[in-house]
Amino acid sequence: MAELPDKAEHFIEWYLEAVEVAGLTDKRYPVKGMNVWTAYGFQARRLLDGLMVRGIEATGSQAVEFPALIPQTEFQKEKEHVKGFDTQVYWVTKGGTTELDIPLVLRPTSETAMYPMFAIWIRSHKDLPLNVYQIVNTFRYETKTTRPFLRIREIHFFEEHTCQLTDEAAAARCQSNLATFQGIADGLALPFVASRRPEWDKFPGAYYSIALDLPVGGARTLQVGTIHHYRENFSRPYEIRYEDLSGELKYVHQTTFGLSERLLGATVAFHGDRRGVVFPNSIAPFQVVIVPIVSQNSGPIAVDAARTLADRLRTRGLRVHVDDSENRPGAKYYLWESRGVPLRIEVGPREAAAGTVTAVTRLGEKKTLGPGPLEGPILQALVDFDLALAAQARATFQKSFSVAYRLEELKDSTTVRLVSWCGTEECGHQIEQAIEGAVLGVPEGPLPIDPGPLTECIACGKMHGTRWTLAGRPL
Amino acid sequence: MAELPDKAEHFIEWYLEAVEVAGLTDKRYPVKGMNVWTAYGFQARRLLDGLMVRGIEATGSQAVEFPALIPQTEFQKEKEHVKGFDTQVYWVTKGGTTELDIPLVLRPTSETAMYPMFAIWIRSHKDLPLNVYQIVNTFRYETKTTRPFLRIREIHFFEEHTCQLTDEAAAARCQSNLATFQGIADGLALPFVASRRPEWDKFPGAYYSIALDLPVGGARTLQVGTIHHYRENFSRPYEIRYEDLSGELKYVHQTTFGLSERLLGATVAFHGDRRGVVFPNSIAPFQVVIVPIVSQNSGPIAVDAARTLADRLRTRGLRVHVDDSENRPGAKYYLWESRGVPLRIEVGPREAAAGTVTAVTRLGEKKTLGPGPLEGPILQALVDFDLALAAQARATFQKSFSVAYRLEELKDSTTVRLVSWCGTEECGHQIEQAIEGAVLGVPEGPLPIDPGPLTECIACGKMHGTRWTLAGRPL
Repeated sequence: MAELPDKAEHFIEWYLEAVEVAGLTDKRYPVKGMNVWTAYGFQARRLLDGLMVRGIEATGSQAVEFPALIPQTEFQKEKEHVKGFDTQVYWVTKGGTTELDIPLVLRPTSETAMYPMFAIWIRSHKDLPLNVYQIVNTFRYETKTTRPFLRIREIHFFEEHTCQLTDEAAAARCQSNLATFQGIADGLALPFVASRRPEWDKFPGAYYSIALDLPVGGARTLQVGTIHHYRENFSRPYEIRYEDLSGELKYVHQTTFGLSERLLGATVAFHGDRRGVVFPNSIAPFQVVIVPIVSQNSGPIAVDAARTLADRLRTRGLRVHVDDSENRPGAKYYLWESRGVPLRIEVGPREAAAGTVTAVTRLGEKKTLGPGPLEGPILQALVDFDLALAAQARATFQKSFSVAYRLEELKDSTTVRLVSWCGTEECGHQIEQAIEGAVLGVPEGPLPIDPGPLTECIACGKMHGTRWTLAGRPL
Repeated sequence: MAELPDKAEHFIEWYLEAVEVAGLTDKRYPVKGMNVWTAYGFQARRLLDGLMVRGIEATGSQAVEFPALIPQTEFQKEKEHVKGFDTQVYWVTKGGTTELDIPLVLRPTSETAMYPMFAIWIRSHKDLPLNVYQIVNTFRYETKTTRPFLRIREIHFFEEHTCQLTDEAAAARCQSNLATFQGIADGLALPFVASRRPEWDKFPGAYYSIALDLPVGGARTLQVGTIHHYRENFSRPYEIRYEDLSGELKYVHQTTFGLSERLLGATVAFHGDRRGVVFPNSIAPFQVVIVPIVSQNSGPIAVDAARTLADRLRTRGLRVHVDDSENRPGAKYYLWESRGVPLRIEVGPREAAAGTVTAVTRLGEKKTLGPGPLEGPILQALVDFDLALAAQARATFQKSFSVAYRLEELKDSTTVRLVSWCGTEECGHQIEQAIEGAVLGVPEGPLPIDPGPLTECIACGKMHGTRWTLAGRPL
């Protein structure tokens, strides 16, 4: 029951162990980077999917599903896009013992699967906007070291694809997606920053890309989602056109919004501590674990009390587990802490007789609840836990950014940095070299901290066109 | 607004048109047999998935997810299984521009993905039973003509895999699966018959296979699911062993239970009529469609009444659509009938003023509801519709079977047949030739109709070992 590695000092080692002890995934599958979702991990994923589905459907987007296999001929229609993915895709070349006439790509993302159909579906301005999404697995032939949930070869992917009448409507859809993501992130108690990526780092084929980043210690950042404005970049090669009111044929303006199980990885990475994972209530496979403390000769009173309480909490819609295994209480506490359960309830024979329990949150707050009905106090303890987790997260987030005024300061960054940047690619690359990382881009909306008055570009020293810009070290 | 083809005379043509007019799937995707799930079709599928999930989780089975790609080396461990699938699998041979050292199979089913992991997970009798399931897409390089939901290349697949201590426990799990399927089929108002398939038609690698068949007109049957007992056929090559109480290493006994979107196809095929699809409430994307009848100068009263009613019904958890499009009422009726909506509510200006509506079920029953609160009467109408659909289905089912006593009777079968069979492969093949179809097997549990006293084998005329056996023409 050793503690995990120090999170600040050895982040990657800490992360890998935190995922491992929580039993969220099994990486012993014989294809590297394709992990098995255990029952526990799958439950968290299913709850996370639910957050995404409710968020996006509230904006009128509809669930669809397109095939996983894309003919080479369709895949290669948009040149930038193909260039971005050509070295990353799996190719299906044989069916049974037959070589396929046209090889099939296992989708790395679904633009090239969807857009030939959009071209059939869309005829008139009345067919717009078209807002659809799917949650499917996508595949990338990753050559770098894989890490559970963060860099993998089979990705659990949420992708919204929309077609809009105009450039402005597409930009508005991007902002709507940003608001949807805010809701999802709030549900996970994850503060984030949205930045418009520099030209050289945008999605292959995009007009612009807004990326959603989390600071995860030091200057490290984790990109957990993206929102892209495609303009007509795809609708032209795929010929997705509509007849406007005057009868003229026009190309649609497209957007996409992508999320993945990286959000689960981010939840682990951001909230976790030396004892393991910390889940917010929203995606905790078990919100409450009840541990009956059985002493010799005390009979079944504690176990009975635990089971009765569990049933009552379940009727309130809570996900509850009673750990009545033969392990010692200490081992149970360790296990369920490492697995991130928000609230542990302990009940011994004397407490059972008195109608009380001991409640301990995953953040370490301990209370006696009861006597009297316990459902209300337990629900309140869960709400308080979520609020405390969110407050802790905001405090961590605030400390994760600082301003840098000179390139030399960047090398030893212990936070993500705000720098003034003139917007030129040359200066951008100087910043990237100096921080040994990346220019994340200009934040959309308010800055994560107040950097004071705008100064000259950190690289060239000119004032013209400068903006406060984020730089960090993406994982 | 022509009627569909005659269902009895031209079943396949009827089926294809019924799926088409309902807009459940779009088959214009550029890979044949890989169809696009439209928003409407996806919603039905999602509801169907929910039936499966609730059914199987009530038995303690847990959701997991295994990778889609299986290394050739793992895929080829069980010889019969490989033989059954070798000509049907898609091979991934390239990642980016690199030839893979070990080709990967796109899962046609997940035995060979799961069992190497089960061998790691299972150590002791305490780890058993292991009951897990997943809902994922599977892939088969189908060379026959594809048909939406029935014969496709990307299959939406439910698969439970279990490991049990003994042969008996595995047989008991098969019976538990049968009870679970009964619940799912009841939810769809689909009567079925479970049969133990003859030796030559069991799943590759199985000890025995119980198939779940629906009669769908004439002698035609549709297999909508299977339950397999594997005994040790897979646990031996994959070395899935446990230590029993005495410390001895033993092989687990395995079972699987498979369902797919064929159940959606079966719902279309079984309940549908000349006007199109008929959905039971359980999986109807919309349970109620409200059509406001707007006459000139009547103002917004009917539309307002429709929207208010829709909101009220939604708070009761119903899936409701208000069709206030510009189409004529007749066109709307036709559209929503063809799409299978259980209940249509019409409300005109005079009815809106009087607080009444006209309710028409998809089976054609028409009623005036109100004045007064409408939620109760509408919920009742939906319950009555489901009961009527189930009664109609049972009546159809009863008429779908008849006894045959001589091989010559089989050729002109207009129902699925019950025949006496001695169980030998030779006689089985004679029956199959005579009916130009297949021996489905000996029913598990009660026979679908009472055939009277058992007679001699329909093929060899011997009495020894005969059982009432089903023969039909599988789609």
